[in-house]
Amino acid sequence: MNTHDPARVPETYAPQTPQSLPGLLANVAVIRDLLGGAPERWVVEEVGDGNLNLVFKVRGPAGGIAVKQALPYVRLVGESWPLPLTRAHFEHLALVRQARHAPGMTPAVLHYDADMALIAMELLEPHVIMRRGMIDGIVYPSFAEALSTFAAATLFHTSDLAMAAADKKVLVADFAGNTAMCGITEDVIFTEPYMVSDNNRWTSPQLDDLAASIRGDSELKVAVSRLKLKFMSSAEALIHGDLHTGSIMVTQTDTRIIDPEFAFVGPMGFDTGAVIANLLLNYFSQIGHERAPGARDAYRRWVLSGIEDFWNGFHSRFLARWRHEAKGDAWPAALFDDPVARIHLAGEQERYMAGLFRDTLGFAAAKMIRRILGLAHNIDLEHIADADVRATAEARALMMARTLMIDPDNFRSIEAVTAAACRWNAIDPFGATG
Amino acid sequence: MNTHDPARVPETYAPQTPQSLPGLLANVAVIRDLLGGAPERWVVEEVGDGNLNLVFKVRGPAGGIAVKQALPYVRLVGESWPLPLTRAHFEHLALVRQARHAPGMTPAVLHYDADMALIAMELLEPHVIMRRGMIDGIVYPSFAEALSTFAAATLFHTSDLAMAAADKKVLVADFAGNTAMCGITEDVIFTEPYMVSDNNRWTSPQLDDLAASIRGDSELKVAVSRLKLKFMSSAEALIHGDLHTGSIMVTQTDTRIIDPEFAFVGPMGFDTGAVIANLLLNYFSQIGHERAPGARDAYRRWVLSGIEDFWNGFHSRFLARWRHEAKGDAWPAALFDDPVARIHLAGEQERYMAGLFRDTLGFAAAKMIRRILGLAHNIDLEHIADADVRATAEARALMMARTLMIDPDNFRSIEAVTAAACRWNAIDPFGATG
Repeated sequence: MNTHDPARVPETYAPQTPQSLPGLLANVAVIRDLLGGAPERWVVEEVGDGNLNLVFKVRGPAGGIAVKQALPYVRLVGESWPLPLTRAHFEHLALVRQARHAPGMTPAVLHYDADMALIAMELLEPHVIMRRGMIDGIVYPSFAEALSTFAAATLFHTSDLAMAAADKKVLVADFAGNTAMCGITEDVIFTEPYMVSDNNRWTSPQLDDLAASIRGDSELKVAVSRLKLKFMSSAEALIHGDLHTGSIMVTQTDTRIIDPEFAFVGPMGFDTGAVIANLLLNYFSQIGHERAPGARDAYRRWVLSGIEDFWNGFHSRFLARWRHEAKGDAWPAALFDDPVARIHLAGEQERYMAGLFRDTLGFAAAKMIRRILGLAHNIDLEHIADADVRATAEARALMMARTLMIDPDNFRSIEAVTAAACRWNAIDPFGATG
Repeated sequence: MNTHDPARVPETYAPQTPQSLPGLLANVAVIRDLLGGAPERWVVEEVGDGNLNLVFKVRGPAGGIAVKQALPYVRLVGESWPLPLTRAHFEHLALVRQARHAPGMTPAVLHYDADMALIAMELLEPHVIMRRGMIDGIVYPSFAEALSTFAAATLFHTSDLAMAAADKKVLVADFAGNTAMCGITEDVIFTEPYMVSDNNRWTSPQLDDLAASIRGDSELKVAVSRLKLKFMSSAEALIHGDLHTGSIMVTQTDTRIIDPEFAFVGPMGFDTGAVIANLLLNYFSQIGHERAPGARDAYRRWVLSGIEDFWNGFHSRFLARWRHEAKGDAWPAALFDDPVARIHLAGEQERYMAGLFRDTLGFAAAKMIRRILGLAHNIDLEHIADADVRATAEARALMMARTLMIDPDNFRSIEAVTAAACRWNAIDPFGATG
């Protein structure tokens, strides 16, 4: 696919249907073998519930696969918002790269059809979208270890700490064309929630005042714009770009990361921040999902411990790789090969991680705010039927997000973040006026 | 030229000689018209004194041009150090871009021959290389204003402050292939001077102890490695990449910037730091060029005032553009359109400039150190015949550079930097032991 003309729709492109898909896939030997039987007997189901794409499950007598196809527009909005098919190219490229650095943590790619903007991949069963499981209050004992491993591996190994400078620049260029997807992030995360925009919506009238106060909060707008500039100009590592709990499929023992169509070489904290933001949103949403007040308290504690385990696991895994696998052109080993130099380097590594933590909190805050005031919301909150209860959860999350974004230095550890979440979760956000 | 295979030398490539060049250029109408007369009567002179390329002056009865041709190796070292011809492609691309943002401040490009890695351009006469003029103690009244205008215009207009995000990513990708040139900088500026390397040389034995102490200085090695990582991963703007006084041609009234073959999208402070570093090196070198002690004191004051004028001019010009021409996707105007928000934005702009100043000092320090301990030296210092005098100037510069790199926050203004230079210039660097 010509990634330089993102608006191009190949003449042979056609959105697939359950009827058309078997005919297309029947030509691919690996898929025919995997599904077995006659293609006309394959059972196809369209299961996409995301914002952007078509997703199918295809089953034959011998097995099943998942098929994801990009549409030339944003599915959530419709044809009025065109979106290049090239995102399938970048998703495919990212899946291949991630599999190299974090083997077994992404769905295996079986087939990529560039002209159809279509990726056929391993069917993850009995996995569920982690967000859905968390709404149901299900504990996933292995996710924090897995997700911190994935983040540490993919971010470290695509950074200047691990790569030769020339290879890193090739990686930057390979993903530089994914501008439409970056543009969505720049608009809907870093800009629109802080201004009047037709794309915005929120629980109204309950959050009207809070939404207005955020639009008028100059300090916050400075802080989010600083993050936006970092998103646009910090080529730190190949990031997933959309690492929320809807991009994670889990069982009790397995964790897989899907949907890297927003991937590009950007700031690492955007990925780690996405994880923490979405866990915090789920935490605040529990008030709307528990059968009786306090019924989900144990689950709340598990969510917060998951946040701590994720960050602490990421921190130690990233540093371990830096200590043992730093083959990149940054921080050349030749400069730090004596005991005193190694002590100074270790100090700098902690400083680096502290900076990454600060970025993480800022990006987490931006992602919390956009999910409550912007275009795309989370079902953790959306599925709370009672608007007053939903607004309470959302207001707590918004208020906490503001402190994270304005004063990240007030949070010296992830435990300080989870302790703050506890405190925000105990307040009546409308107490003063209600 | 295929920039994806940088090692490739086109079959038709041939290093030009004064004999061959007229035949090549005779086919270019614009050059034929400009030079006039018969090509076989054109007078060609090879004048290259740089580290990398061939440079010719070609004159005909009607006028003259300059021709720069890349060699497939580093001229300073020889064929044992290959260097891709593609650098001519990036130099041409940068010259075109710089001319757009800073019209009349670069040599006009007349012709680009990709297969020959050759650029024919305006002959700058009676301009001299600024470094040579400064060694002779010549004052250039207009350079600080011109150079600060050039830096502010080219850096601002190729940054996210001025560009649409998608266009900026195209710019990043366009220059991502210039990895060989970036690699030289990464090695000879940020790495080799801090370790034992065959590429290093210094005034010996006078600087032996100081060179060893820098190789053993862990704090400094941490600081320079932090700068190296910033050089590798901060895609702030299209930088010249080699903005020393040897890349500036001047008269009393005109200033032109040449030789952007190191251009890529990197940290702005690398360019502003290069200017300040090379002015400081010239300042310290005056002890070796004055007829009698103190004879160049007025010139020294002019050099320091030039440093101040350059930075202060850059600061105000960059900010003025930000205030009036901020059409980029960063810091969207829609978020800062009320008086209170504008005050907060103005505060953030000062904070941004303070960060850029800090970067500038760090990169300046790195460039001072590499010119004294690394591969490529400056004639400001090299032309001092008396090794003891040269070592005195070099030691002062090294010591000051160390403080700039380790404690940039100690320098809150450019006047604090020039005042420190004055103090370093008054010490006997070998006093303790000599």
